Amino acid sequence: MNRFWSTTLNRLSPYVPGEQAQRDDVIKLNTNEHALAPSHAAIEIGRSLDPERLRKYPDPHSKALTSAIADVCDVLDENVLVANGSDEILAFAWTAFLSDSERQPAIPAMTYTFYPVWAQLLGKGLQRVPMKDDLSIDLEAMALWSGPAVFPNPNAPTAMAVSLSDIETLCAGNRDRLVIIDEAYHGFGAETAAPLIARFDNLLITRSFSKSHALAGLRVGYALGAPELIEGLRRVKDSFNSYPVDAHAQAVAAAAIADTQWFEQASNTIKENRRELKAGLEDLGFSVLASEANFLLARHPNFSGVELTEKLREAGILVRSWSSEDLKPWVRITVGTKSQQQTLLAELMIRMGEA
Amino acid sequence: MNRFWSTTLNRLSPYVPGEQAQRDDVIKLNTNEHALAPSHAAIEIGRSLDPERLRKYPDPHSKALTSAIADVCDVLDENVLVANGSDEILAFAWTAFLSDSERQPAIPAMTYTFYPVWAQLLGKGLQRVPMKDDLSIDLEAMALWSGPAVFPNPNAPTAMAVSLSDIETLCAGNRDRLVIIDEAYHGFGAETAAPLIARFDNLLITRSFSKSHALAGLRVGYALGAPELIEGLRRVKDSFNSYPVDAHAQAVAAAAIADTQWFEQASNTIKENRRELKAGLEDLGFSVLASEANFLLARHPNFSGVELTEKLREAGILVRSWSSEDLKPWVRITVGTKSQQQTLLAELMIRMGEA
Repeated sequence: MNRFWSTTLNRLSPYVPGEQAQRDDVIKLNTNEHALAPSHAAIEIGRSLDPERLRKYPDPHSKALTSAIADVCDVLDENVLVANGSDEILAFAWTAFLSDSERQPAIPAMTYTFYPVWAQLLGKGLQRVPMKDDLSIDLEAMALWSGPAVFPNPNAPTAMAVSLSDIETLCAGNRDRLVIIDEAYHGFGAETAAPLIARFDNLLITRSFSKSHALAGLRVGYALGAPELIEGLRRVKDSFNSYPVDAHAQAVAAAAIADTQWFEQASNTIKENRRELKAGLEDLGFSVLASEANFLLARHPNFSGVELTEKLREAGILVRSWSSEDLKPWVRITVGTKSQQQTLLAELMIRMGEA
Repeated sequence: MNRFWSTTLNRLSPYVPGEQAQRDDVIKLNTNEHALAPSHAAIEIGRSLDPERLRKYPDPHSKALTSAIADVCDVLDENVLVANGSDEILAFAWTAFLSDSERQPAIPAMTYTFYPVWAQLLGKGLQRVPMKDDLSIDLEAMALWSGPAVFPNPNAPTAMAVSLSDIETLCAGNRDRLVIIDEAYHGFGAETAAPLIARFDNLLITRSFSKSHALAGLRVGYALGAPELIEGLRRVKDSFNSYPVDAHAQAVAAAAIADTQWFEQASNTIKENRRELKAGLEDLGFSVLASEANFLLARHPNFSGVELTEKLREAGILVRSWSSEDLKPWVRITVGTKSQQQTLLAELMIRMGEA
């Protein structure tokens, strides 16, 4: 606190980003990066970038990347907005659509912890909708709230997905309700709502290159939605920071999304490794939620999430846990390579046995 | 306008970014990019980046880049915050320090046109301080305003600078006044206020890699200030978008700022070319303001800025002009290479003669 801090600044409780160990001698399964290297074609485009592209300002509207995304998603360019990660897209969306008191959004009680932070900085509060008994999102309860709805599909940190038909029911039930679906974990098995964009102008989808394109270090995300929603986001972007995506990131992301063969193979590998990791954890006595993401949420009858995290940290393996009451029993483990997972399971077996 | 647009969104008049022609067959002197190629060492660091750095999340705090900046600027790491261009730093600063009604900042009447846009989106208004007769910033008038002060040094689009001693007088005159100096055009001749950081906790400086490091395409900027101001900016960043600077940009910018030899030589070239361009324009009958930036603001008795811009556009040369009353007579020309400038002067001579 300081005499120059604004009222807004004084009441902020910022988001705490996950531990981003920059060392290469740890097995990093704590922040849901993709287990495989990104598209080789995309990396090569970045490496051969003409330095002139770095000297000049980038295209403020990321037009080539926008078109590449529109092609792959089977929508028009006017249905796409690109920004600095899907976090920035969501921050813009909060200002654009969720910042009036009568537009407080409903979010699931157990979900991405950045939502309440944006609500605090940019909004006027939010409504938390309790989870169903199986920890899935209660879309029927969400439909009872008169305001907008915001939720990830699949949800984080549960990894569980809702169905496309349930999303369609929510969108169709009230055309004046904006539904924002955070598809950060798109591509690992959940049904995307993208085919609904053409029919519902009250649907906005946000996506990221961080997870299913293995480019968390690139900071690129995008929104899919009706032209009026995209235009609203663009107006906020151009009132905040006109050039949020650098020339290198625009070029690499455009090549990455066009490499659909990489995407399909890499997603299949994650699904296969996920099955193996789930089976391995269950063999060790864990309960594991059904996952459509590149991570698993698991609990063990004898150890808290924090205890498991500490045991694994001693073995040079990073996973994620929480101290909050609802998440205390759980540990979140990113799907890794087969070899990383074998090391994880072996270390768990040894270290849980020692206790 | 749309039924989902918030009150805030409905009243926005976004910033309009300059024309960013991505073609290479125009002479682009309209958005003040550096005339020379960026540091070769920096480009090579980017090209040899390990793809693992793109697969994983980047360091959310840009620690290595922060230290590289602190070293070159002779301050501590805790005096530095890195973000996605100095525009993003200024947007964060608006929220952090200028968003209460009693904190409306004074800005020069003729200045960077993004300030009023941030005031609209993030603030509660601002106070415009008339220019002195010679179009320089009136710091004495600014000192009469009780709130914070925000101005570029050198100013845009005039290119004129205020002195370090005048800045010191402003900071010392009222320790409860926050002074934000936008040093986007640092390195081309104006005195920096960086040496005052250690003595004045009411001084915040913002800088960019876009101009004097020839990396407009990279989107990196930084703030220099007292630890409490930096911490305030960090809290806004982490409540908005935790990872605004990608791994490639962090690595390239760190190498670029460490290449002090490139910086010195490149800045000297710009100063030399600026002298030549000014002399050439004056030979053609232009009045040219004294410039400490990498651009000139010039006027001709027979042609408006828009007329000159149109003539040059026909010759494949982009420069900048405005339709607003105060800026109508002026044309802003980025300092280019000697060859670009010779082409510009030759085309001006021919095309002004034709009229």
